[in-house]
Amino acid sequence: MFRKKETKVTHLYPDCALLTDLYELTMLQSYFDCGMNEPATFELFVRKLPAQRNFLMAAGLELVLDYLCDLRFTDVRLEMLARTGRFSAAFLRSLESLRFTGSVYAMAEGTVFFPDEPILRITAPLREAQLVESRVMNLVHYSTLVASKAARCVLAAPGKQLVDFGLRRAHGAEAGILSARASYLAGFSGTATLQAGLDFHIPMFGTMAHSFVQAHQDEGEAFEHFVRSQPENAHLLIDTYDTEIAAKKVVALSKRLAAEKMTIKGVRIDSGDLSIHAQKVRCILDEGGLDAVTILVSGNLDEWRIEKLVHAQAPIDGFGIGTRMNTSADAPYLDCAYKLTQYAGRPRRKRSEGKATLPGVKQVFRTHGAEGKLAWDALVLEDERHAGVPLLQPVMIDGQRLCDRLTLDVMRQHAQRELLSLPERIAALNPSNEPYRVDISERLVDLARELDSMQSAH
Amino acid sequence: MFRKKETKVTHLYPDCALLTDLYELTMLQSYFDCGMNEPATFELFVRKLPAQRNFLMAAGLELVLDYLCDLRFTDVRLEMLARTGRFSAAFLRSLESLRFTGSVYAMAEGTVFFPDEPILRITAPLREAQLVESRVMNLVHYSTLVASKAARCVLAAPGKQLVDFGLRRAHGAEAGILSARASYLAGFSGTATLQAGLDFHIPMFGTMAHSFVQAHQDEGEAFEHFVRSQPENAHLLIDTYDTEIAAKKVVALSKRLAAEKMTIKGVRIDSGDLSIHAQKVRCILDEGGLDAVTILVSGNLDEWRIEKLVHAQAPIDGFGIGTRMNTSADAPYLDCAYKLTQYAGRPRRKRSEGKATLPGVKQVFRTHGAEGKLAWDALVLEDERHAGVPLLQPVMIDGQRLCDRLTLDVMRQHAQRELLSLPERIAALNPSNEPYRVDISERLVDLARELDSMQSAH
Repeated sequence: MFRKKETKVTHLYPDCALLTDLYELTMLQSYFDCGMNEPATFELFVRKLPAQRNFLMAAGLELVLDYLCDLRFTDVRLEMLARTGRFSAAFLRSLESLRFTGSVYAMAEGTVFFPDEPILRITAPLREAQLVESRVMNLVHYSTLVASKAARCVLAAPGKQLVDFGLRRAHGAEAGILSARASYLAGFSGTATLQAGLDFHIPMFGTMAHSFVQAHQDEGEAFEHFVRSQPENAHLLIDTYDTEIAAKKVVALSKRLAAEKMTIKGVRIDSGDLSIHAQKVRCILDEGGLDAVTILVSGNLDEWRIEKLVHAQAPIDGFGIGTRMNTSADAPYLDCAYKLTQYAGRPRRKRSEGKATLPGVKQVFRTHGAEGKLAWDALVLEDERHAGVPLLQPVMIDGQRLCDRLTLDVMRQHAQRELLSLPERIAALNPSNEPYRVDISERLVDLARELDSMQSAH
Repeated sequence: MFRKKETKVTHLYPDCALLTDLYELTMLQSYFDCGMNEPATFELFVRKLPAQRNFLMAAGLELVLDYLCDLRFTDVRLEMLARTGRFSAAFLRSLESLRFTGSVYAMAEGTVFFPDEPILRITAPLREAQLVESRVMNLVHYSTLVASKAARCVLAAPGKQLVDFGLRRAHGAEAGILSARASYLAGFSGTATLQAGLDFHIPMFGTMAHSFVQAHQDEGEAFEHFVRSQPENAHLLIDTYDTEIAAKKVVALSKRLAAEKMTIKGVRIDSGDLSIHAQKVRCILDEGGLDAVTILVSGNLDEWRIEKLVHAQAPIDGFGIGTRMNTSADAPYLDCAYKLTQYAGRPRRKRSEGKATLPGVKQVFRTHGAEGKLAWDALVLEDERHAGVPLLQPVMIDGQRLCDRLTLDVMRQHAQRELLSLPERIAALNPSNEPYRVDISERLVDLARELDSMQSAH
């Protein structure tokens, strides 16, 4: 288990009561004015899969629970709000004591899910449940986006080492941190992002930059300096000038350093035809007796390029994957929503064209088939009985976590089991002609119809 | 001018010396061990334009300067580093006193630029210049990505109000904050993200969510509650059930509230055919005497959809633009790099296949043509004389800012002038057959050739 103190140094943006859309607070002012604060249920789901995808992987739940536990309006934030002149003094006073007192049901992080299935359900007094919309979505959307993309890389490279290299082109600091976490959850071996490794106890990896080689007059000298400083952990970047010539320098250096008991761990290739270079470099290393030295490749990799390299049986041990993974380049956002499905005991539905939602508090049941593979899911009302495993489980009641924080490694094992349970057509990189089956219960369909006719009668 | 104290509440991730790639610090350990710390120059540039683009807009400089000014290794961070067991005690002690003491030359935020042109150039002792790579890129890449995308939305909708609605699907908290800033810089009117508006003094906008309407039994009652709470600033969302019926409710409500001197500012439509709905709603509002009530539309908008709506002369006053803008959905990353171009007075170059860089410390000169339109740029060595305006200007020397912080509004005016100076083919949304001309000086080409032959001789 994580020790709570240790894990909360910087990984969430601090003091984020105002990290929200303005309209959340103007709506709260209005709810306050007319005394509306009955229990409300909101559900977070994805409307449809991105074009190239067969499944998604839920992530970000623990971050949401931290946010909900910590939520409060500090004096500094309340003064900022007062200065906008948009809120009444009485309303601002009511925010002083606001805490999240609701309940959360959710799919475990690392669970595979499909369109229309709620992955997170919040029930709380209306103002609390509304207020948290923007940040809850912000955390779950991005974590889920990255875990879903990273899971595809994992599926494309069974048994290979995958490392997150993406901080520099991640969309801001938090994206760098959260993508390290989400990709590790999905099965990556670790990250190059130092702060993320420290915050979340994720294994850290690093090689060297081209600038290190360039700063030296001689490439071989650069290699030697680096190995002497990292005698137990040296990974050398060999494509600054000529990849194969550099590989030969690695062999020569290794022989020279053997007497001093220093060993070179691996080499990295970052440009050119990675398959061809890896083959040539492997031969050079093996002939030089360096068959234990690993080859890591990098440079605009994604699941398709990885699959191609694996398929070509290129002698590659690991992949450094950055930008295309943590920006989810083929689908940089999910069509997700956080929608009110019940208020004051009455189911609710919006009917906006192309964006209609299913009403009522829901549950997802999953049925497994032969060899534990996923067979089909059913989306039902919470009080319906159904065969299968209910995926939404209580994780917070009355504002209190129900159990200890799970370690990221435990979640990661769950994610691995989930990926193993995917039917072949769903695990494939290309979109399946036969999407995964998600049934919607008759009672749910009836309820939607009933609400529509009531609304039309208005 | 911003008052420094006020603007630095949360907008940068705090205490971020370790918000970097592990390899920056292992390289520093090695530079420390072999005593390398001569002046190094790194340049940040974009290798090529995304497929659909004709130009980019530089952004993020002020954030970089803040980061460089604040950079230090606190005791907490040094202890974290020590616990990794990867660094020597002597090296860790050297980090205690490390500050950024170098110089920065950069294009002003809001400046239009093109491939291969450095937008930021850092010269500092090697260790400092290397250490800052990851975070400098992280800040400049994302800010530039968003400003460049937002600028296209601005060009597509002359005279319209554009508002950033994107927090919920931004890639983490900092992306939400930074995209509000970058889109305002590029010409947006404001943001819905409360914390960003407060941190950067950006005008804030907000309407209401569907859940607000749904939480009420009656849509008309929801509208009335909201107007009574926001009597000076009510924007009503009218597509929860039936857009035109809701517009009629707005007219009826407005008549009833007129006696109490409350007015409705605007309506928002978020689904369906926005052009057709806007026309019908405009008619209903006008016939009801509400020609001052504005129409804002939202829902998966980007520059192409905006252009189409503007071209159809839909009676739309403003656009709420979120996800596709702040994830830069057609191009969620830029092919940018931060490369060593000179060390210890000697020009450097990497020759990796497909990723070769131009050596030496460089400057960009811009020549304007008729009516102040951009004509062509020249990429030259810093000591070359050339006609035109030098775009890289000193902003920090010896670790000290050269001038007061610019306000975001001043930068925004610069960005507006830049967009007005674009030739028509470059300002167009579709990629031009004739890209903008960027010449590379003969001396620069000669220097690259000379370094190649020296390297080959090794």
